[in-house]
Amino acid sequence: MKLLEERIEKDGIVIGTDILKVDMFLNHQIDTVLLDEIGKEFYRLFKDKKVDKILTVEASGIAIAVAAARYFEVPVVFAKKSSHKYIDSDIYTVECYSYTHGSTYTMGVSKKYLPDNSDILIIDDFLAGGNASRALLNIAKQANCRVNGIGVVIEKGFQPGGKELRDAGYDLRSLAIVESMSEDGISFRHDEA
Amino acid sequence: MKLLEERIEKDGIVIGTDILKVDMFLNHQIDTVLLDEIGKEFYRLFKDKKVDKILTVEASGIAIAVAAARYFEVPVVFAKKSSHKYIDSDIYTVECYSYTHGSTYTMGVSKKYLPDNSDILIIDDFLAGGNASRALLNIAKQANCRVNGIGVVIEKGFQPGGKELRDAGYDLRSLAIVESMSEDGISFRHDEA
Repeated sequence: MKLLEERIEKDGIVIGTDILKVDMFLNHQIDTVLLDEIGKEFYRLFKDKKVDKILTVEASGIAIAVAAARYFEVPVVFAKKSSHKYIDSDIYTVECYSYTHGSTYTMGVSKKYLPDNSDILIIDDFLAGGNASRALLNIAKQANCRVNGIGVVIEKGFQPGGKELRDAGYDLRSLAIVESMSEDGISFRHDEA
Repeated sequence: MKLLEERIEKDGIVIGTDILKVDMFLNHQIDTVLLDEIGKEFYRLFKDKKVDKILTVEASGIAIAVAAARYFEVPVVFAKKSSHKYIDSDIYTVECYSYTHGSTYTMGVSKKYLPDNSDILIIDDFLAGGNASRALLNIAKQANCRVNGIGVVIEKGFQPGGKELRDAGYDLRSLAIVESMSEDGISFRHDEA
């Protein structure tokens, strides 16, 4: 998505060779015009899929999932993060390790919002190692739901998550795939966009 | 807002006399059609105010702030919550006690996203004691910004936050004000809606 790549080049901040901060327009301040274009693009990419609900995880996935859900005209369900384990039997949970925070948290979704046999589109802001996506896939599997697509705004193509999910057969679409980055600049991959 | 009150009556879950769960359509699953109506209503209420940015706090404020921001055509800035204190000098911070979680967290906003002299609209999902709103007001004050309005989806009118903010002169608008509630039902106040 050219508009997004241009925005990442203009306002993204690269720290070292691994951290890309997009706080200026996506993860702290949100450019609502760009956000709407992102939602529209996810709809263009997945509109032929059956989608009953869009599943994401708090906090930075919420705005993106809502922007897409407006076009699909479906509800969003966002997994909640907790540092403690749930004991509530009405919640699907999975443990997830966050490289960003260097800690493990429990991701949880109330069972009643993922009815058996639903068709799900997973949406998230970043894909790197793929831990968050795998956690959401795990929850969808517990709920006996089909995941008909995974939409990611920014994929770090130099990390293994994207390849692993594609190899596993998921229809993963990333609006921007960073091939490599440094403080001197960012290069994008286009063959899988 | 009649549509919202009807939805709270239909799908809100009251626990005791103090807890109102709206996980079905706002805080875990999000009804994107209702969300758009909420955004439109905030625009109707505050459209004559100067608004450069909408300020909210993660996670459940994000979807609502974004829904309103689409109508105002301005960016959203969401404060981040952290259990540790920031030492970064580029961030405005304030301590906030959450009754919901029974713990204190640090709310932070990067200075660069709240430029001096900006006109701010604060948006949040719930107002009860008013701690989160006061924390956002504190951050806006540190940033030397004007808060031209505070928009809340659900106010617990039997708690003191709303009266305190109105008495302090803020233009606070709540889309639904719960006068009292129990497991038998919910009554709404309409005089300040």
